Amino acid sequence: MIEISNLSAEKPYKYFDRFYKAAIDSKQEFIEAISIASFNEDSNEVESRYVNLKYIKKDEWIFFTNYNSPKARQFKKHDQISILFYWDKTNVQIRMKARISKSPASFSDKHFEKRSIEKNALAISSMQSQEIESHQKVEDNYKKVLNSTDKRLHRPKSWGGFSFTPYYFEFWEGRENRLNRRYIFLQRDGEWHEKYLQP
Amino acid sequence: MIEISNLSAEKPYKYFDRFYKAAIDSKQEFIEAISIASFNEDSNEVESRYVNLKYIKKDEWIFFTNYNSPKARQFKKHDQISILFYWDKTNVQIRMKARISKSPASFSDKHFEKRSIEKNALAISSMQSQEIESHQKVEDNYKKVLNSTDKRLHRPKSWGGFSFTPYYFEFWEGRENRLNRRYIFLQRDGEWHEKYLQP
Repeated sequence: MIEISNLSAEKPYKYFDRFYKAAIDSKQEFIEAISIASFNEDSNEVESRYVNLKYIKKDEWIFFTNYNSPKARQFKKHDQISILFYWDKTNVQIRMKARISKSPASFSDKHFEKRSIEKNALAISSMQSQEIESHQKVEDNYKKVLNSTDKRLHRPKSWGGFSFTPYYFEFWEGRENRLNRRYIFLQRDGEWHEKYLQP
Repeated sequence: MIEISNLSAEKPYKYFDRFYKAAIDSKQEFIEAISIASFNEDSNEVESRYVNLKYIKKDEWIFFTNYNSPKARQFKKHDQISILFYWDKTNVQIRMKARISKSPASFSDKHFEKRSIEKNALAISSMQSQEIESHQKVEDNYKKVLNSTDKRLHRPKSWGGFSFTPYYFEFWEGRENRLNRRYIFLQRDGEWHEKYLQP
């Protein structure tokens, strides 16, 4: 589930809210899973991966990760990303494009405090996406942090939130024989422009 | 389902085959859904969307689309893409990077002939991703083609396959407390190099 507060009243957010509620009603699993595609300026490569979206605050969408991870380094040089939801229970795809930046440290602290000690021990012990000799070593590092004397773990500076604000939405509804419905919202000069696309 | 033939015997393909069979055994729905992220050189934007993977022939992965669509135009200028599978029944993510190019016309013809007349009528009638005044107009165009006198529809030149060959694989297995397992295969000088990554 995504923690949604003070959702924007703009039209694409009304669409989002409607599709999101329909997915909940259809008992969609992993409703918070999004794929994030980013651009690696150094290697000239597109890269993508799944993350869990945790919050939508008004028009700001937030997930958490390691700030030294490859994706974090990519966001720093190329702050434009593409985001996808797919909810199979309702056959709805949501495509977004956005600019991304680090969330305020105070917000990351607050979220870190709410998480289980097990997840936090992993956030501290893992150098995300760095090579390691074995999975056993991952578990050893994790247990060392988990069993450390300091039971109130503190958020490491290397872990925190990323916030993105979409400037483009496509709501895609799958229909029989590929007669899919596609609604586009594009922000230009602070206004949302709407159109239909052919399937 | 993906039609797989003569699958490569290289190690990442053995991993793929094992995870794919486990997903089938777990009754994974939409097992053939992949997200494709591409780079739009003109606007300097990453874009992504879902497609259905239809074939794997040895080390060549094939899906079909409109050759005038935005993604097709993006592949032409920037032929590197990122691909994601996520199978929720087994909690497995597969990340790939690849080079992409058009499939041979004869292969696209063969696949087009196997499809239903309804799907083909849509492929002919729709200018994919072009703006249209209403969904009613989409349906009108579709019915016009479907009810045309020529019942054996011919593949339009604007529709066909894209083939990609991955040079990078990551197999990601989700585990409790984020102690996920990540296996990487990277092709360099024709050899596959293997490593483990931290979660």
